[in-house]
Amino acid sequence: MTGFTPTGKLHLGHFVGNLENLLKLKSEYDEFLLLADTHAITTLSKDPKVIRQHALGNILDMLSVGLSEDEVTYYIESEIPEIYELASLFSMYVSHNRALRNPTIKDEIKMKGLGDQFSLGFINYPMYQAADIMCVKGELVPVGKDQEAHLEQAREITEVLNKLAGREIFPLIRTMIGRVGKLVGTDGNPKMSKSLGNTIYLSATEKEVEEKVMNMYTDPTRIHATDPGHVEGNPVFEYLDAFGKEGDRGKISEYKYAYTKGQVGDVEVKKYLVQILNNFMEPIRERRKEYDNEERLLAIAQKGTQRARGETQKTLQEVKEVLGLVY
Amino acid sequence: MTGFTPTGKLHLGHFVGNLENLLKLKSEYDEFLLLADTHAITTLSKDPKVIRQHALGNILDMLSVGLSEDEVTYYIESEIPEIYELASLFSMYVSHNRALRNPTIKDEIKMKGLGDQFSLGFINYPMYQAADIMCVKGELVPVGKDQEAHLEQAREITEVLNKLAGREIFPLIRTMIGRVGKLVGTDGNPKMSKSLGNTIYLSATEKEVEEKVMNMYTDPTRIHATDPGHVEGNPVFEYLDAFGKEGDRGKISEYKYAYTKGQVGDVEVKKYLVQILNNFMEPIRERRKEYDNEERLLAIAQKGTQRARGETQKTLQEVKEVLGLVY
Repeated sequence: MTGFTPTGKLHLGHFVGNLENLLKLKSEYDEFLLLADTHAITTLSKDPKVIRQHALGNILDMLSVGLSEDEVTYYIESEIPEIYELASLFSMYVSHNRALRNPTIKDEIKMKGLGDQFSLGFINYPMYQAADIMCVKGELVPVGKDQEAHLEQAREITEVLNKLAGREIFPLIRTMIGRVGKLVGTDGNPKMSKSLGNTIYLSATEKEVEEKVMNMYTDPTRIHATDPGHVEGNPVFEYLDAFGKEGDRGKISEYKYAYTKGQVGDVEVKKYLVQILNNFMEPIRERRKEYDNEERLLAIAQKGTQRARGETQKTLQEVKEVLGLVY
Repeated sequence: MTGFTPTGKLHLGHFVGNLENLLKLKSEYDEFLLLADTHAITTLSKDPKVIRQHALGNILDMLSVGLSEDEVTYYIESEIPEIYELASLFSMYVSHNRALRNPTIKDEIKMKGLGDQFSLGFINYPMYQAADIMCVKGELVPVGKDQEAHLEQAREITEVLNKLAGREIFPLIRTMIGRVGKLVGTDGNPKMSKSLGNTIYLSATEKEVEEKVMNMYTDPTRIHATDPGHVEGNPVFEYLDAFGKEGDRGKISEYKYAYTKGQVGDVEVKKYLVQILNNFMEPIRERRKEYDNEERLLAIAQKGTQRARGETQKTLQEVKEVLGLVY
């Protein structure tokens, strides 16, 4: 199980962050993919109407990378009221102090520039996230590194409830961090964001990929192509490492060597990266064409949500029985 | 609309606080009565299984005072997941700072001795309360004075949502404070509480009423029956004023006069209060006998909850349409 807050399009960072792991594990696991649309209100409170389109767009992005609706259950949080009741019950067993100590919450406040003007719902987010996972009894959660603190809180909640129940009603949640710890932005910024314009979307056209890559930040200490360059911390090489296929490894190594010796220019390596990325994205673009239809996306979302809601209703009932809240 | 957190039995303070107003208005309004059972976890987190019994007991208390199931819709919060989703959506539009500034929250922390160990859910309580009211489009809320700060927050939420919607989807919530601002405990403590044992339950027997009244705190400055006594701040007279019927007013006035002149003893006035209270409680006890059956109470709770849930689903859909979260 994993999820996204639909505030924009998915990009290459999301692919290496967790989608790649979902692809790898899809034959082994019953996978659930959540769209946390109400959480998107945190940054879109004045313009909430765009969230729905982002949610459907994210489902399209994920279908396009190869997570088909037959292999993955897509579900939309706001369509499952029982998730919110679960989260509310959890919040009775988590102290307010503990919630404020969550380092990811602190980071997000800084990153999103929320100052002291964040909503009450924002502080509750780890509860919703715990409910998003636990409602379908999630065991393995492929996530980005920044989400680990939330997952720690979810684990604490499973422990409290299992203890109250006197048996294991929730499995221990394990996280799975992506192969590439964190993909840098095309401008070298360690944080990718829509507002910085430093991402390459999974839906980018060939031309857009070319533009982004040709403008990519490389090695600021290197003025001429004949100067020895740095490979580490250089986005061009980070992207080559992240998206080159097995068969490309030899050539990537050659380019790295030549770059540090001042034997190859930025333009040549960038052109190569454009080719690597467009190769990677070719099948994604093909599948996107097939799925890009609002009615079809809606039907996929509805079907998955119906299944997840059924699971959630069972889970909620189980928790309510533990608490004796059954009428 | 009004509600109770089922942490114990209802007492005379609840009657004058809001039940009396519900009785008065029942022919004019479509009344809803909520049991906020998940909020009861705040103080009963280690023993949540008693909450259900309190909830059914509170419904019995309310039926007994004359709020029949044909006139009032009884509903149980935990049985309506959509209330929690509404509350979650509201919490996206309320700042964390605003929630912490709520004076009732501050008072409750002090009163319940929660220190800094209160739950996240506790801070969210005003959101649930807003959702409890707004889910059935509550207009008039008979409440105790201590709940006014919560209601103020609910009003702020109606304003935000009506503004987002561009029309009035929620009516302005008006509060209605009971005739007796606040009934003191039988020990003279301004706060009634189960742990202090200073309440008279609506379910008290004649004997229990007698015991409580005969041990009532009166005027500590008065040693002998012939000493002039104080009527103001004297629980015996406060209860006489609160529960004496129209026809008893003359006699109550005479007793007050005699008491200030040292012409009547505590015992005589207390015996009179016992009689007044037992007269008041006689019809309550009769109706209690009729309703005191778990299956019947459950059926009443289920029927009311079903109706309230239908209303809540409509309200949630309306709010989600305003936010564009419709799939």
